Amino acid sequence: MKTYLDCIPCFFKQALAAAREAGADEAGQKKILDEISKSVPKISLSLSPAYMSRIVYGTIRKITGVIDPFKEEKVKSNKLALKLYPQLKERIKRAKEPLKEAIKLAILGNTIDFGTGLSFDLEKELNSEGNFPIFDYEEFKKILKKNGGLPSGGRDGEILYVGDNCGETVFDRLLIEEMGKEVIYAVRSAPIINDATIEDAKFCGINKIAKVISSGSPISGTPTELCSQEFLSFFNQSSFIISKGQGNFETLSEENRPIFFLLKAKCSIVAEELNCNIGDMILKYNRK
Amino acid sequence: MKTYLDCIPCFFKQALAAAREAGADEAGQKKILDEISKSVPKISLSLSPAYMSRIVYGTIRKITGVIDPFKEEKVKSNKLALKLYPQLKERIKRAKEPLKEAIKLAILGNTIDFGTGLSFDLEKELNSEGNFPIFDYEEFKKILKKNGGLPSGGRDGEILYVGDNCGETVFDRLLIEEMGKEVIYAVRSAPIINDATIEDAKFCGINKIAKVISSGSPISGTPTELCSQEFLSFFNQSSFIISKGQGNFETLSEENRPIFFLLKAKCSIVAEELNCNIGDMILKYNRK
Repeated sequence: MKTYLDCIPCFFKQALAAAREAGADEAGQKKILDEISKSVPKISLSLSPAYMSRIVYGTIRKITGVIDPFKEEKVKSNKLALKLYPQLKERIKRAKEPLKEAIKLAILGNTIDFGTGLSFDLEKELNSEGNFPIFDYEEFKKILKKNGGLPSGGRDGEILYVGDNCGETVFDRLLIEEMGKEVIYAVRSAPIINDATIEDAKFCGINKIAKVISSGSPISGTPTELCSQEFLSFFNQSSFIISKGQGNFETLSEENRPIFFLLKAKCSIVAEELNCNIGDMILKYNRK
Repeated sequence: MKTYLDCIPCFFKQALAAAREAGADEAGQKKILDEISKSVPKISLSLSPAYMSRIVYGTIRKITGVIDPFKEEKVKSNKLALKLYPQLKERIKRAKEPLKEAIKLAILGNTIDFGTGLSFDLEKELNSEGNFPIFDYEEFKKILKKNGGLPSGGRDGEILYVGDNCGETVFDRLLIEEMGKEVIYAVRSAPIINDATIEDAKFCGINKIAKVISSGSPISGTPTELCSQEFLSFFNQSSFIISKGQGNFETLSEENRPIFFLLKAKCSIVAEELNCNIGDMILKYNRK
């Protein structure tokens, strides 16, 4: 997905929220916005919006010295989600179709986000029905049945699961447990917004049920040109890929791979790309 | 009111909406955003946000050659409001307190706005009750009683009414008719966003019931340092001033004059200044 001009005001909004989170005073915040404004003429609209997170967070780091502005929120999200784990596990167990319920919860978990500058209410979201206008569940079931679970752990049978945010990782764990297959779980190579890193994935217990790797991407998405060889070897060979969240959708939507995108549409641009409304929950199979 | 850092993303949003309205193609829109980004480091936060409209519209004019991007919408708003005039007149006449109803309608008329990049639904708004958490009606009545209506038209007795948007001007006309006093109606000196100019005020029939003047301000507000001597002589002598809309509030809120601010709070920053919520309708007396 390319960058739209409408993303530009949003970059400033996100930068301001993150600058405040990093503890910058008003002068520091202004300096950060001034620096980012210098980057605007250089933005290539052919790159995905997720690329801008590198400029925004790079600037914040340079000016405030804070590497991980959302560190505290990340830990809080992980702990909150782990606390919810037993009741969510039970909810899946009691559901008429446990797999379907686990998918829905994994998408609802994508509500946890500090990147869009909007507040979120995870518990409220979990108690609502949620709107799922695009829900390619039959394909998911079919392809899941065909894939993974090889005792030899053959790469072709492994499922690649590209994670997104802290806390959300616990919801991913529930889905992975429900799928019962061999999974490679990929996360960012460095802290960015509230995205999960290897440390967060381990904290959420993903390593107990999947092989955790870094995608190699230090930005809030997974552009293949920034990814590690290890990640790419899974990405190019797996016949079942799960991609969580907007940043991964923005960077992977044009890849010619069998990807299921699970996300909450959080901005008008992504909603337009998906032909849905803001707030909709999506399970979309990439038929390319 | 000073410019907040949160206004910066909003300037870009407004610029993009206006660039599209001016018919700029994607490359032109990008060029406009690039130019505006060059102005960001130069923004003085001590000036009111309305000042930025000069930079935004100046850039749009320079790049597209379009002087008045909202020309068509302005004419449409004027015509729509004139069409509503008879029924609104009747509504005021039938109201228990006609003056109160006319004030409320004048505030509801401030719903017409193309500046904030949000859509609006005037007819829906007119049929709703509206939320008026700040409504200094008793002061308005008291000060109205003391002022204006001198047969000699003495300046001290004249009411200065600072208009805002096209179409809204018809709502102002209804309030002026209901007040039944001598009024000076001031408008922008040049087209900016959808703000009314002398031509619009006349189209809406204000000249039949008030003396129409230009404030001298070419921006979407009325900063005294940009105003004409004629305007200032009324502004500094009148003991009853009405100011419509956000732009006028942003530029006049710190003036030590007896001003009633009538507006709909359309953004979080103005809402915070007024200690109200977005969407609230305000009649606030400046007690300075």
